[in-house]
Amino acid sequence: MKSHTSLPKSRIEAFSDGVIAILITIMVFDLKAPILVGDIPVYSEILALLPKFLSYFISFILLSVMWVNHHQLFNLTGHIDLKILWLNMHLLFWMSLVPFITNFIGSSPFAWQASMIYGIVFCMIAAAFTCLRLYLVRHTLLLKETQKLEHRSRIYLNQVVMGSYAVASALSLVSVYCSWVIFFLTPVLYFIPQKVKINFTSSI
Amino acid sequence: MKSHTSLPKSRIEAFSDGVIAILITIMVFDLKAPILVGDIPVYSEILALLPKFLSYFISFILLSVMWVNHHQLFNLTGHIDLKILWLNMHLLFWMSLVPFITNFIGSSPFAWQASMIYGIVFCMIAAAFTCLRLYLVRHTLLLKETQKLEHRSRIYLNQVVMGSYAVASALSLVSVYCSWVIFFLTPVLYFIPQKVKINFTSSI
Amino acid sequence: MKSHTSLPKSRIEAFSDGVIAILITIMVFDLKAPILVGDIPVYSEILALLPKFLSYFISFILLSVMWVNHHQLFNLTGHIDLKILWLNMHLLFWMSLVPFITNFIGSSPFAWQASMIYGIVFCMIAAAFTCLRLYLVRHTLLLKETQKLEHRSRIYLNQVVMGSYAVASALSLVSVYCSWVIFFLTPVLYFIPQKVKINFTSSI
Amino acid sequence: MKSHTSLPKSRIEAFSDGVIAILITIMVFDLKAPILVGDIPVYSEILALLPKFLSYFISFILLSVMWVNHHQLFNLTGHIDLKILWLNMHLLFWMSLVPFITNFIGSSPFAWQASMIYGIVFCMIAAAFTCLRLYLVRHTLLLKETQKLEHRSRIYLNQVVMGSYAVASALSLVSVYCSWVIFFLTPVLYFIPQKVKINFTSSI
Repeated sequence: MKSHTSLPKSRIEAFSDGVIAILITIMVFDLKAPILVGDIPVYSEILALLPKFLSYFISFILLSVMWVNHHQLFNLTGHIDLKILWLNMHLLFWMSLVPFITNFIGSSPFAWQASMIYGIVFCMIAAAFTCLRLYLVRHTLLLKETQKLEHRSRIYLNQVVMGSYAVASALSLVSVYCSWVIFFLTPVLYFIPQKVKINFTSSI
Repeated sequence: MKSHTSLPKSRIEAFSDGVIAILITIMVFDLKAPILVGDIPVYSEILALLPKFLSYFISFILLSVMWVNHHQLFNLTGHIDLKILWLNMHLLFWMSLVPFITNFIGSSPFAWQASMIYGIVFCMIAAAFTCLRLYLVRHTLLLKETQKLEHRSRIYLNQVVMGSYAVASALSLVSVYCSWVIFFLTPVLYFIPQKVKINFTSSI
Repeated sequence: MKSHTSLPKSRIEAFSDGVIAILITIMVFDLKAPILVGDIPVYSEILALLPKFLSYFISFILLSVMWVNHHQLFNLTGHIDLKILWLNMHLLFWMSLVPFITNFIGSSPFAWQASMIYGIVFCMIAAAFTCLRLYLVRHTLLLKETQKLEHRSRIYLNQVVMGSYAVASALSLVSVYCSWVIFFLTPVLYFIPQKVKINFTSSI
Repeated sequence: MKSHTSLPKSRIEAFSDGVIAILITIMVFDLKAPILVGDIPVYSEILALLPKFLSYFISFILLSVMWVNHHQLFNLTGHIDLKILWLNMHLLFWMSLVPFITNFIGSSPFAWQASMIYGIVFCMIAAAFTCLRLYLVRHTLLLKETQKLEHRSRIYLNQVVMGSYAVASALSLVSVYCSWVIFFLTPVLYFIPQKVKINFTSSI
C-alpha cells in the first residue's frame, strides 16, 4: 500500500486553492447591488441586503478558516495517494455547496429549511475534514509527541463544531433565531485555543 | 521532432487545474436557492431542485474523475510540446461544456434533446482523453512493462465509457429514463478496477 | 514567536493570485451586452453602459495596482506565520467587495450611497494593506537602509490614498461629482513616484 | 535599469493563467440552456443558441491561441520588471473584455455595433501582445540568430492579425457578413506557419 504514495502534492494544493479561491470570491455575486436613481435616500433597499451581507461575511470567515486549516494539514504531509485525492474531493464537494446555502439563508433568513440545510452542510464539511485528517495522520504522517497532542485537540475541536452545527440544524425546526446564535458563535471556536495553534505550527 | 519537446509542464498543469477548478465550482451557481418567506413548508420548491442537484452531483463526480486522471497522466510525462498543448485545449473545450449540459439536463430533465447532448459531450470528453493519452504515450513516454498493461486497460476503459455514452445518447430518442440509468452507472466504472489503479500509481 | 514562522509562502501567493484573478476578471460579467436587433443604431443603450464601463475600468486598474503591490510585498519576505495568513484574508475580504461596489456605482452612478460605500471599501483596502505591510516589516523582514526609505514612502502613500478615499466618501453626501473626481485622480497617485519604485524593486 | 529586473516570473505566470482560465471557462455561462418541457421537439430554441455557440467556439480558440503564445513568450524570458507587469496587465485588460464582446455578438449577431466592437477588442489584444513582445525582446532577452527570425515572423503575424481585425471592424458598417468571414478566417492564420513554430520552440 505504501508503494503508491508517490504523487506530488503541489497539484492537489493548487487545485484545492483554486476551488476555495473561487468559492470565497464568487459568493459576492449574490450580493446584487440595488439600482438607485437620484438623491432619494432608500434605506430599505440597502437594509434588505443586510441578511445577505451577514451570511456572506460568516461564510467568508468559515471558508478562510478551512483554507488555513487545509494549508496547515497538507503542510504536514509529503506524500499523496489516490485515497487522499478522493477524500479531498469529498471535502471540496461539501465546500462547493457553501455559496448555495449562503444565498439560500441570505434570501430566506426566516425559513427553517434554509437554516437546517445551512447547518447540515457545515456539519458535513467538519466531518469530511475529520476523515481527511484521520486518514492523513494514520497513513502518511509520522507524528512527533507534540504533534500528537495537537492532532488530538484538532480532532476534538472538529467534533465540537460538527456537534454544534447538528444541534443548530435540529433547532431550526423550533426557532431559526436559536440556529442563528449558534451559526454566529461557532466560527469563534476556531479562534479561541491560541496555545494549540502555536504548538501546531511550530511542529512542522 | 524530439527537439522541440522542451516546454515545462508546470504551466499546462496550473492552467488545466484552474479551468477544471472553475468548471467544478461554478456549476453550483445554477442551483438557485428558492426564496421562502415565513414558516410555511414549501416542499415542492425544494423538490424542484432535485434534478438540478442530481445532475450537479454526477457532473461533480465526473469532473473529479477527470481531474484525478489528468493529474496521473501528466504525472507520467516530463516534456510538453505544442501538440500536447493543443490536445489538452481540445479536452478542456469539451469539458468546458459540462456546466452548460448539466444546467440543461437539470432544468429540462424530460427533454430528449438534453439527454442526447449530455451523452454526446461526455462521449467527446472520453474521446479527447483517449487522443491525449495515446499521443503522450507514443511521443513522450517510455513505458515500463507494468505501465503498458496499465495503459492498455485505461484505453480500454475509456472506450467502454465512450461507447456507453454514445448508446445513452442514442437511447434518449427512445426513452430518457434509459439514458438516465446509463448516466448514473457509467461513473461507477471508474471506481471498479481497483487492482489497475494500484499498478498505475505505483509505476510512476 | 519566531519558532512558528515556517509555513511556505507559495500557497498564500497562489491563493491570493487566484482570488485577485477571479475578482478582476469576473467584474466584466456585470457589463451585460444590450440585445440589438437589425441595423437601427441604438446609441442610447450603448451609452447606458458607459458608467458601468468606466467603473469597471477604474476597478481593474486599482485591483492591478494592488496585485502588483501584493506581488512586491510578498517578494520581500521569506516566512509566513498564522497572523500573516489572517491579515492577508482580511485584505482579501475587503478586496472581494470590489465587484459589488463596482456594480453598485456603475448601475446607480448618481446615488450618494453608492459613492459613499465605494469610498469606504477602498479606504478599508488601503488600511488592510497598511496593516499587512507594517506587520510584515516588523516581524519577518530585515530591512536594508534603502528599503527603509522605500517602506516609509509606501506607508505614506497608503495613508494619502486612505485619506483621499475617506474624503471622497464624506463628500458624496454633498455632491457625487466631487467624489467622482477623487475616484478618478487617486489611482494616478500610484503611478507618480517613479524613483521610489526603482529603489524598491532594486532592493530585493 | 537592468538592476531592478529581479522579480520572479512564477507569480506573473500563475496570475495570467488564472485570469485566462477564468475568461475561457466562464464564457460558457452565457450559453443559457433553454428550458424544454415534455417530448415536443423545439428546434427553434436550440437553433437560437447557434450564434452564441459559434461566438463561444471562436473566442475559445482565440483565447487558447493567446494562452499558448503567452506561455511561449514568458518561457523565453527569465526576468520580470515592473514595466512587464504593467504591459501584461494591459494585455489582460483587453482580454478581459472577450466574454463581453462574445456575449454581445452572440446575442445581437446582426447589429453592426457588435461586430465593430468585437473587431476593435481583438485588434487591441494583438496590439497589446505586440507591445509586450517588443519590450521583452528589447529589454530582457538575448536572442540567438534562429530566434531573431522567429521573433520577426511573430511580429509580422501579429501585424497581419491586427490589420485584419481593423478591416473587419470597419467593414461592419457596410455588412456584418463580411466581418464574420474575417472573424472566422483570422484564427486560422495562427495555425498556418508550421515551420516557424518548430524553430520557435526548439530555440528555448
